[in-house]
Amino acid sequence: MNTFGRIFSLSIFGESHGQGLGVIVDGCPPGIKLVTDDFLADLARRNPIEPGTTPRKEKDIPELVSGIFNDHTTGAPITILFRNEDVQSAEYNKYADMPRPGHADFVASKKYKGFNDYRGGGMFSGRLTLPLIAAGVIAKKFIEKINIHAKLISAGGSENIEDAIRQAEVEQDSIGGVVECIAENIPVGLGEPFFDGIESLLSHLIFSIPGVKAVEFGAGVSSASMKGSEFNDVYISTDGKTKTNNAGGVSGRLTNGNELVIRVTFRPPSSIGKSQKTLNFATGKEDILEVKGRHDVCFARRTPVIVEAVVAITLADLFLINN
Amino acid sequence: MNTFGRIFSLSIFGESHGQGLGVIVDGCPPGIKLVTDDFLADLARRNPIEPGTTPRKEKDIPELVSGIFNDHTTGAPITILFRNEDVQSAEYNKYADMPRPGHADFVASKKYKGFNDYRGGGMFSGRLTLPLIAAGVIAKKFIEKINIHAKLISAGGSENIEDAIRQAEVEQDSIGGVVECIAENIPVGLGEPFFDGIESLLSHLIFSIPGVKAVEFGAGVSSASMKGSEFNDVYISTDGKTKTNNAGGVSGRLTNGNELVIRVTFRPPSSIGKSQKTLNFATGKEDILEVKGRHDVCFARRTPVIVEAVVAITLADLFLINN
Amino acid sequence: MNTFGRIFSLSIFGESHGQGLGVIVDGCPPGIKLVTDDFLADLARRNPIEPGTTPRKEKDIPELVSGIFNDHTTGAPITILFRNEDVQSAEYNKYADMPRPGHADFVASKKYKGFNDYRGGGMFSGRLTLPLIAAGVIAKKFIEKINIHAKLISAGGSENIEDAIRQAEVEQDSIGGVVECIAENIPVGLGEPFFDGIESLLSHLIFSIPGVKAVEFGAGVSSASMKGSEFNDVYISTDGKTKTNNAGGVSGRLTNGNELVIRVTFRPPSSIGKSQKTLNFATGKEDILEVKGRHDVCFARRTPVIVEAVVAITLADLFLINN
Amino acid sequence: MNTFGRIFSLSIFGESHGQGLGVIVDGCPPGIKLVTDDFLADLARRNPIEPGTTPRKEKDIPELVSGIFNDHTTGAPITILFRNEDVQSAEYNKYADMPRPGHADFVASKKYKGFNDYRGGGMFSGRLTLPLIAAGVIAKKFIEKINIHAKLISAGGSENIEDAIRQAEVEQDSIGGVVECIAENIPVGLGEPFFDGIESLLSHLIFSIPGVKAVEFGAGVSSASMKGSEFNDVYISTDGKTKTNNAGGVSGRLTNGNELVIRVTFRPPSSIGKSQKTLNFATGKEDILEVKGRHDVCFARRTPVIVEAVVAITLADLFLINN
Repeated sequence: MNTFGRIFSLSIFGESHGQGLGVIVDGCPPGIKLVTDDFLADLARRNPIEPGTTPRKEKDIPELVSGIFNDHTTGAPITILFRNEDVQSAEYNKYADMPRPGHADFVASKKYKGFNDYRGGGMFSGRLTLPLIAAGVIAKKFIEKINIHAKLISAGGSENIEDAIRQAEVEQDSIGGVVECIAENIPVGLGEPFFDGIESLLSHLIFSIPGVKAVEFGAGVSSASMKGSEFNDVYISTDGKTKTNNAGGVSGRLTNGNELVIRVTFRPPSSIGKSQKTLNFATGKEDILEVKGRHDVCFARRTPVIVEAVVAITLADLFLINN
Repeated sequence: MNTFGRIFSLSIFGESHGQGLGVIVDGCPPGIKLVTDDFLADLARRNPIEPGTTPRKEKDIPELVSGIFNDHTTGAPITILFRNEDVQSAEYNKYADMPRPGHADFVASKKYKGFNDYRGGGMFSGRLTLPLIAAGVIAKKFIEKINIHAKLISAGGSENIEDAIRQAEVEQDSIGGVVECIAENIPVGLGEPFFDGIESLLSHLIFSIPGVKAVEFGAGVSSASMKGSEFNDVYISTDGKTKTNNAGGVSGRLTNGNELVIRVTFRPPSSIGKSQKTLNFATGKEDILEVKGRHDVCFARRTPVIVEAVVAITLADLFLINN
Repeated sequence: MNTFGRIFSLSIFGESHGQGLGVIVDGCPPGIKLVTDDFLADLARRNPIEPGTTPRKEKDIPELVSGIFNDHTTGAPITILFRNEDVQSAEYNKYADMPRPGHADFVASKKYKGFNDYRGGGMFSGRLTLPLIAAGVIAKKFIEKINIHAKLISAGGSENIEDAIRQAEVEQDSIGGVVECIAENIPVGLGEPFFDGIESLLSHLIFSIPGVKAVEFGAGVSSASMKGSEFNDVYISTDGKTKTNNAGGVSGRLTNGNELVIRVTFRPPSSIGKSQKTLNFATGKEDILEVKGRHDVCFARRTPVIVEAVVAITLADLFLINN
Repeated sequence: MNTFGRIFSLSIFGESHGQGLGVIVDGCPPGIKLVTDDFLADLARRNPIEPGTTPRKEKDIPELVSGIFNDHTTGAPITILFRNEDVQSAEYNKYADMPRPGHADFVASKKYKGFNDYRGGGMFSGRLTLPLIAAGVIAKKFIEKINIHAKLISAGGSENIEDAIRQAEVEQDSIGGVVECIAENIPVGLGEPFFDGIESLLSHLIFSIPGVKAVEFGAGVSSASMKGSEFNDVYISTDGKTKTNNAGGVSGRLTNGNELVIRVTFRPPSSIGKSQKTLNFATGKEDILEVKGRHDVCFARRTPVIVEAVVAITLADLFLINN
């Protein structure tokens, strides 16, 4: 559903082209200083003026509707609302007959019996990551001793990100990318097995970000090719620090005090400038689809701040459960 | 925590060397035929008499404690209990001073303040996947129209699985592996975004299986290197079937009616016959650890049935939510 | 916390004197016609122009922020926002030293370490029942075949409600009351024991309404004085209809197809015009408190629509779980 | 469903005449001393050798299946199993045609499509309170500073409990009763509004005990007849103690540091020795039902320990959420 978390809990709502969208953050302890300005830096990171990102530029000013009093959290649910303003919905009617490959158009229409708000992808839009980022800002404040840094480490299979994006723009195509997130200074023992290990909770949230196709921890997929003698991280101090970190900071589904290392693969955006051959559901025949509108060539470029947010949110919840 | 699922819900309990372990399956509809024999085939797949697997051989006979009457489910919680019998616990005391690299010994002791049952890994043992398999058997019966098949597609980075395992045995080492799971005949629209998309729920459960380091859907990590024009799965029929399946059967975090394709990377088992240099926490100095006991050279070999189980469990729950 | 329900799930937010307050209703099926006007009648019932109710008169126009498209529910979370406008907060500072008897002032300040928004009772205000009513309107539409009617059956121990209220007004005092709610045409078998029986879920929600001190079903407290031969409701038709209804429509924590009968006792409002002797926490001495502001003489008078709402919400969720 | 609690969480399973029944207690902190003997006193209180209670006398020895190691809780889920032994099931077949008034026979058969285990009431049996009591023992140990005492304060409307029961026995009838529970030494601020106030959580659990028809806090139903000036509890010390306790220890749905006072009304047991006129569903005509078997004349007599248990369980969970 649209709620996640046991104590530090999020409820997300809204659509891309409706009135607005936002989040309720429940379970945040009282007494944390929090003002509108605190959100602006992370929100801006999602909307960079950079090659590869959509020209749709909302101001994205969060309205703090509840849970804040005298510039501090009160312990009550914090509601953050974003209004939609720069909306161009006219384009979207035509996808009823020719659902865009890779998009949720077709499945959403089936699931919601044709009543879903399809404009701009509705509730499936990448714009729904805005509330995640806002919740992440709050979580980061709460777990401020933990440093979380994510960055795009490759795009289109290339470590030369700028070149890869420029090339895709020229081709009116799109490319995927890989984001790596590292969190330092994490206490030992966060995670609640059997089911709520740290990797389970993190991957649950990460796969809720549109476009994610793989999540790895530490050595990740390459660990399949390693021997135990090679993979095992040998302890070097009694606080649990290890010489290597193939486990990515996780033992037995609990944080082990080493750096938490996560890699997230984003597929290329579905909307491309190039025309695509696909099925016309009205005629039952192959047809040519041209997806107009304002698209990202490389959506992955905008996602490091989102990955950071979900890592912070997960750690905040586990921290509250554990204490 | 130890409970997962909204309607079809699991609560797992037990330890490797305690009295026993098991699962409560809540929310299973009444009227499904279910007898002890139904469990035996899948349970046996976890415990093959094959190279690469531990010589610990429990009989693993499930006791159906509740929820079954006249050989059918009643709608009440189904409790399945496995007794531990073939237990050799003497070995485990020594790891207090010299926690085994890669194991949960150190973190568990920290988290649970030294009170955890460390014998055989306690609640962190791979043996806790038994109840998952048992729950999976029930789920498979409930969603019998969906075919779910998982297999080990590589071990130690090699597609020649037998050779790779034999080689690791000779070296007294261990190796990881990759399991691929495909589920066919899935209805369109399973998944409950924002947070409970199909990939989120599946990865949540898959990462609760000990030893998993990566989860991918469809093209997975390779999708980062693909262009949108290449990745997009073009529709070929009005029921949503597509020419390619790079999305792995998922659009907008909902099943799209194509095959669900999941790949799971298992790291090599931590326990190896070879001696390992590690820290002696009592002396604060490097020491040599030899891990005796009965270990898997390639635990991944035993996991396809576990991956199938968690896929079935997830789909059963989503099916009940959706209907 | 601030979220309740398994499928048809509510998340409530906001404060009495902050920006606003509202609710996210998750899990509502798509395709239900829903416009702003649908809410007005029930909202007005909470705010009657009648003796015994507060002169604070907000317009209480609900803003439908998400989940509605083309005047129908979409299946996405429905967010309803009420803005606070008629706010007079100046009065509330003084209660820091002299917390009002019966109010949450003291406990809220302790729990939230002084950071709670105390203006108008903050998150503890009866105004937070507005979102409940709004959610109830949606639930009623979904379970439209079930008729739910609640009314105030006594106030101040008197069945002559108008007189009792007039008398209390004269005395600058307040009085409690009893609301009875009857729901007809309920299918057999709603409720999910062990823990989520119909009475458990209903009482959970009913006690979240400020001021409730007792909840009874059917014969309620008087059943303690009855004999089994007298209490037992004898079947008169094979659809489960019974001659009497002492059980109040519930057998084994499941609806039994007879009328669901609930009685709810509301205590008198804490704020009274009369001056009260209480402790001055600053001086540690007895002091005289006069509570100004706009108060209800008989808050119970405004609550039948709230009780109806929570009954509808509970039934809607159980209906979705059961189907 | 069969799971309740956010951190200190219970999952109940089993039937009256099946293999057994029990509970998983999840979220219990490690390091609490716990052995089989700890359970015996409270379990015995449910099964007194006293007039008014059933002659079915199980030994009710709890088996600690998991979560205990070296006589202490480990932090893993604690599983407690009771075997059913003194079972006489033959009698129950006949109720298929003539469902017992007041029992769950009819509704359970409808809900579970005839697959429910009807023997001895199956999952609806009062015997399912055994696991509640066991979980209560653990909770009481965890919150040992809080004193919780419940007692039967009236039976059949009479404060002379022994006489009332004797009379009912003579008449081959049954009677209800009222249990009052008082908990002392509770910290200020337990409860998590909006929905998870202390009264909401307590009543949720209390109504899951078979036979409860009303739950009241403090002045309860009588508060409807009180004036605010009379009801309001005036502070007498800065720790929040009040002169009176009409609120029953609750302000704004939070504990306020005064004694928590709860009254629970139990209806008379449905099974009575006397013959009853009821409908024969097979013939569609009125018929005479005689309910044989071993019954309680006054089940309420056995319930104080159950009420204490659910109070302890609720407080344990709120304590863990709050800290």
